Amino acid sequence: MSNWEIRKGEHLDDLQNGYRIIQAEKGFRFGMDAVLLAAFARLKKGGRVLDMGTGTGILPVLLCARTEACHFTALEIQESVAEMAARSVAGNHLEDRIAVIQGDIREAAARFGAASFDAVVSNPPYMIGNHGLVNPDEGAAISRHEVLLTFRELAAQTALVLKSGAPFYLVHRPFRLAEIMDVLREVHLEPKRMRLVYPYADREPNLVLLEARQGGRPRLQVEKPLIVYREPGIFTDEVRSVYEGGSL
Amino acid sequence: MSNWEIRKGEHLDDLQNGYRIIQAEKGFRFGMDAVLLAAFARLKKGGRVLDMGTGTGILPVLLCARTEACHFTALEIQESVAEMAARSVAGNHLEDRIAVIQGDIREAAARFGAASFDAVVSNPPYMIGNHGLVNPDEGAAISRHEVLLTFRELAAQTALVLKSGAPFYLVHRPFRLAEIMDVLREVHLEPKRMRLVYPYADREPNLVLLEARQGGRPRLQVEKPLIVYREPGIFTDEVRSVYEGGSL
Repeated sequence: MSNWEIRKGEHLDDLQNGYRIIQAEKGFRFGMDAVLLAAFARLKKGGRVLDMGTGTGILPVLLCARTEACHFTALEIQESVAEMAARSVAGNHLEDRIAVIQGDIREAAARFGAASFDAVVSNPPYMIGNHGLVNPDEGAAISRHEVLLTFRELAAQTALVLKSGAPFYLVHRPFRLAEIMDVLREVHLEPKRMRLVYPYADREPNLVLLEARQGGRPRLQVEKPLIVYREPGIFTDEVRSVYEGGSL
Repeated sequence: MSNWEIRKGEHLDDLQNGYRIIQAEKGFRFGMDAVLLAAFARLKKGGRVLDMGTGTGILPVLLCARTEACHFTALEIQESVAEMAARSVAGNHLEDRIAVIQGDIREAAARFGAASFDAVVSNPPYMIGNHGLVNPDEGAAISRHEVLLTFRELAAQTALVLKSGAPFYLVHRPFRLAEIMDVLREVHLEPKRMRLVYPYADREPNLVLLEARQGGRPRLQVEKPLIVYREPGIFTDEVRSVYEGGSL
């Protein structure tokens, strides 16, 4: 435990997969969306993967537990957040597999080069602009709202850094699905696989998992519904299996 | 019954809602997609509604049984099919409510005028081009494949004939969802409401019901899953209620 450096206002959470993650007690905390996205992504052994807006570093850490021999570049614009993610990487002894880099997603292609990644993953801000925000400078606001970055900018950079035919995995809100599909196609990231996440079998979905491919041909596979709860507080078998390391 | 004129190779089917429909025994026959679309559409009393590619006339006839005082224009390019639809309209004494018109969807705006309808409905061909077709001239092929019309042409004409803010209701295949969303937005028909139809709770969806609005603001409401069968041969309560006149 001596290698874990935890600061005031931070908490060390056990991911139950052999790894831990540092999170701010009063900031953006990872949720089920990151867990489901990690289970939805299909990464090739040995591939180079970019996480656009890594936050605490949760996605690469979850993906390290699931996939062999991938190397992750974890890009985060907020300096203090990137620094916290780097401490989680060090604490988990994952320095060889995850490089946390502080920088702007809008400069990703200029920084890493065109066609330099085998996959991109992202759990981007869901909300449009800074609508309804009291304090747009606050860290959690930057993680949740498109304060610093629009989805169009994220998609455009993703299309540039991906190799031809390579996948982009993302999670977003269904209410923005039409716009997301439209923007993805505009930058030649063709939506190929989609799964809607419904909290209960008889409720509207609150998340959508998407796989798009750089230069892919138009044909979308919509998968069976992913239902989270069988009854209040009790996961369905499928979601329970995800928390035990299963894939979607 | 004396007003029903049935020709050789045709069959008169009872819709169980007070109306009947003439269908060719070996041609395109209406399916659950038309029934679900009629239940999904929300039509205002007294509105003027255009059915783009009416086929047998099934959608206007089903909608007449559900909605009061709408007037339907049922456009169909195939002369023999339009003539058969007109006989179904006459047989049901619906001449005052449904006008069957033989003509090309690509000329709809020129023919009916811009902003001339309060709603458009369509159950368009699902398949792209004439891929895999042995005989692209055959009537059923024209109903199922985009032989005479692309989705883009259909959407463009729909956007023109709809009044500002008015809805377009359609049913399509999920594998084309990304392209459909993209094309709809391109012609300023914003997707506003979507429901995926799953044959069983644990299967991929095979239909998608969509409502788009002319000039609408971007925000899509994805509804709870519509499951068709509880077990083989047995409808779920929701689908059973649709066949009894219920709405979606």
